[in-house]
Order: sequence, then structure tokens, then C-alpha cells
Amino acid sequence: MRLFNQVAIIGVGLIGGSLGLSIKKKRLADKVIGVSRHKKTLFLAKKSRAIDEGAQEIKVIKDADLVIFATPVNTILKLAPLVAKIIKPGCIVTDVGSTKKEIVVKLDKIFKQFVGSHPLAGSEKRGILYAHADIFKDSLCLLTPSKKTNLAALAKIKKLWSRLGAKTVILSPENHDQVLSFTSHLPHILAFALLDIVPARYLGFASSGLKDTTRIAASDSQLWTDIILTNAKNIIQAIDLFEGNLEKMKKAIRRQDRKLLFKILKKAKSRREAL
Amino acid sequence: MRLFNQVAIIGVGLIGGSLGLSIKKKRLADKVIGVSRHKKTLFLAKKSRAIDEGAQEIKVIKDADLVIFATPVNTILKLAPLVAKIIKPGCIVTDVGSTKKEIVVKLDKIFKQFVGSHPLAGSEKRGILYAHADIFKDSLCLLTPSKKTNLAALAKIKKLWSRLGAKTVILSPENHDQVLSFTSHLPHILAFALLDIVPARYLGFASSGLKDTTRIAASDSQLWTDIILTNAKNIIQAIDLFEGNLEKMKKAIRRQDRKLLFKILKKAKSRREAL
Repeated sequence: MRLFNQVAIIGVGLIGGSLGLSIKKKRLADKVIGVSRHKKTLFLAKKSRAIDEGAQEIKVIKDADLVIFATPVNTILKLAPLVAKIIKPGCIVTDVGSTKKEIVVKLDKIFKQFVGSHPLAGSEKRGILYAHADIFKDSLCLLTPSKKTNLAALAKIKKLWSRLGAKTVILSPENHDQVLSFTSHLPHILAFALLDIVPARYLGFASSGLKDTTRIAASDSQLWTDIILTNAKNIIQAIDLFEGNLEKMKKAIRRQDRKLLFKILKKAKSRREAL
Repeated sequence: MRLFNQVAIIGVGLIGGSLGLSIKKKRLADKVIGVSRHKKTLFLAKKSRAIDEGAQEIKVIKDADLVIFATPVNTILKLAPLVAKIIKPGCIVTDVGSTKKEIVVKLDKIFKQFVGSHPLAGSEKRGILYAHADIFKDSLCLLTPSKKTNLAALAKIKKLWSRLGAKTVILSPENHDQVLSFTSHLPHILAFALLDIVPARYLGFASSGLKDTTRIAASDSQLWTDIILTNAKNIIQAIDLFEGNLEKMKKAIRRQDRKLLFKILKKAKSRREAL
């Protein structure tokens, strides 16, 4: 059952904490170590048994044979060089960041055994209090190896996610970022942009439609600023495409083009039903 | 408890059927009559006791003292003159259409005792099979009287919705359509437009974010074509405002303007949390 001796999780929030809980539940490591800037997070993570040991200092990870970055993207990019100085030879490194190209390019240079991961789990909630052991069960985890990726490390990371209940799919980092710009980043941006313009006095009339559409707008602002800025090019292209389509719809509305409008709505409906 | 002798519901779908169920549950009428084009709908509505009697011919409503239009907007506009020829003097008429200005202007001319209603209930589902008696409980129902509205009829319709558990709010038809263009119609349009451009091969990677954001895109295409085309002016204005904001975000992304982007995301987050 055991895959690792010591697993170190840097960032013990919703995903990091859930990783700790599920790795321990499945007995995939002898020991799980958590790193957080916040004492309270470490206290809560220990209390909920997401980690066996926690510290604010990164040096606590020195004996780990797996390090998982579970912080916002920019914090991953910033901490990577520090982590590289501490870990022991042979230590595998992965992350759970929502954009992959920038991370993989940089971390491939810094680590010999880096494998990029992106579990499509979690929600707009954040923090250890929302962590739970079954979050990855029946979810999808995207693995984004590059030409430099160590194949043994990739196999081991793939096994880790499988054991946690996730179905793994391999995508190149570039392809990952392009897919996610449509399936996740653009929907978030539309939700942010929508809530920004609804006049405040109208918000009391919000029905379940607006609420569902904008649930993800409650996502962590720092996390999402990082995601957007590290996938800027793809996101701008997706926005351009979206704007073109919105213009088309606007024209159809202005012309009272019932036929075209119905066709667009029908297509959206059948795609939604297939999701 | 009884408010009406006979209530006739034209269109026995999700909302019409739920009205029948809840009016009967609360014993607000001696008899509920349903009108539908579809024999099967009438059969199901009778079987589920949403209606006491049903017919495909509109003449069945001749003895009603309340007629409720619960069809798509354009069908309401089309059927109103026919209904006017059949109903008895003193019969109150209301509707549950999602846009109000066009309906109120037209039905005010046709009926002496018309009161526009818009219950903010329902979902992307449609049809009598999804109807249930408690759909209006703790919901909001917008009433849209005009200068011509008979005040006794307004009071009675207000009482009807209150008895069904809804909180009623009075808005002018114009104001209603403007509010809804932001809180409901624009979110729907964004969901339709988004699903239209996500490349089909990416749909398998949809996470809960995309799913939630586009749930309403599965709404009935005919119903929504009607809604959009009868609130075209407001919707186009809302789209314009949205596009301007999206442009602002796109520029911030292109410039890697972390500060502005964070500010927009933070505002959206706090607004969403206040919903």
C-alpha cells in the first residue's frame, strides 16, 4: 500500500489538506508533513489529522521523498528554488497548480524529478476547514509531463493519484493550459466580470440562475489572480472568441433573428446536457 | 381559505403544474382547470392532481374567475385575444412570464383586470414531471402593475402569491425588465454564448466550475428565445456594459496588471458572498 516514506505538503489548504487526509486514509506514506505560513492552519491540519507534523519553516521537508506544492501558482514559482536547496537526492516533486506551462518550464529546470499535476477537484471554498479525504474520488487529475520528465517519477505520481481515486489523463503543459482556459479560466472570468457590473440595488432580485452562474466568483482572489496571469495568452484568446460570439448573439437579438437565436440556444442546451 | 371558485391555468408545465399543485394543496380554489396543447401533459397533470379537469380547447376556461397564463411569452401574447373572447366578466387574469413590459402593454389593452406576475421560481428543468407544490415557498414573486391595473385585482393576486408562500415585490414593468436583464437574462446569455465556443473535444475536462456556470444553458430554447426577444433593448444594454468590463479585464490581463485584476476579483468575491 505504501508509496512513500515521507510526504511533505507545502500549503495545507483545501487541496493540500485533502491530500494529507486522503494519503493518510489510504496509508500511502508513513508520515505526512505540512508546511504553512500560518500557525493556525498547522494547528487545524494536525487536529484533523491531515498531517502528522507541521512547521512554518521549509527545512522540515528535508527527509521527504515526495514534496507536493499546494499553494497558489506564484507561491510555487517563488518557493521552488528554496525547496530545491533542502530536499534530498531522489526526492520526487509535484504540484497541484491550475496552470501548468510556466510551472513546468521553471520547475523542470530546478528539480530533476518534477511531475506537474492538476487535480480537477476542489471548489470556490478554501482552507483546511473544507478539506476532506474523499475529494479526489472519481475526479479527474491531469498530469503534464514534458520531454524532461523522469518517467519513473511520472509513473509514481500517476500511481499516487490513482490510489487517491482519481482518473489520470496526460496532457502536455501547453495543451493543458489551452484546455483549461476554456473549461475553467474563461468561466471564472465571465463570473467575475458579470458580478462586477450587476447594479448593487438589483442583487436582491438574484434568482438561482445568477447564483449558480457566479458561484465560482467567490473563489480566492489571490489564487485566481495568479492563475489568470500565468495563462494570459490562452485566456485572452478564449475571451476574444467569446466576445466574437457574444457580438453575434447581440446582432441576432438586435435584428430579432428568432431562427439564429433559437439555433444558438439549442446548441448550448444539447452541449450542456452532454456535460 | 378559498380565494377563487375556478382557476384556469393555461400551460401546465413546471410553473403551471406547480401552481395547480400548490393552489390545490392550500385549497385556494374549488376547482383547477388546465389547458395544454398536449394530451399527455393533461393526463399527467390530472394524474398528479395538479388539475381537476383538463382540455386542449381554450373554451374550457369560460367559468373561471382567475386565468393564469403559464406558457412561453410569445404564446401568452398570441393567446390573449382568444382568451378575452371566452372569459366571463370580472375574471382576473395574470401570467408568469419572465419579461413584463410587452406583456403588460398588450394584456392591459385586452383585459380589464390584468395583473402581471413573475415568480422567481423554477429552474432549467421544464414540464409537469418537475412540478411540485412547494416551489413558491420562500421565493420572490415580482408583481408589475401599470397605471391601468385594477387595484382590487392587484390585491387579490398579491394575496394569491402570499398564500403560496412567496414574498411579493412590486416593480413597474419597465423596471422589472431592466432588473431581470442583469439578474437573469444576461447570465443566461453568457452561459449560452460560453457553451457555444468551448471546443467539443475539451468538454470532457469540464469541472464543477463550468458545469455550474452553464447549468442554465440547458433551459428551454423556445422559452428563452421568447424572453430574450421581448427584452431586447435592456439585454443589449446589459451586454454592452458587460463587454466593456470584459475588455477592461482583458487589458488588465494583457498588461499583467496584478493590482487591478486582484481588485476586480475581490469585488466580485464580496458581491457573490453577499448574494
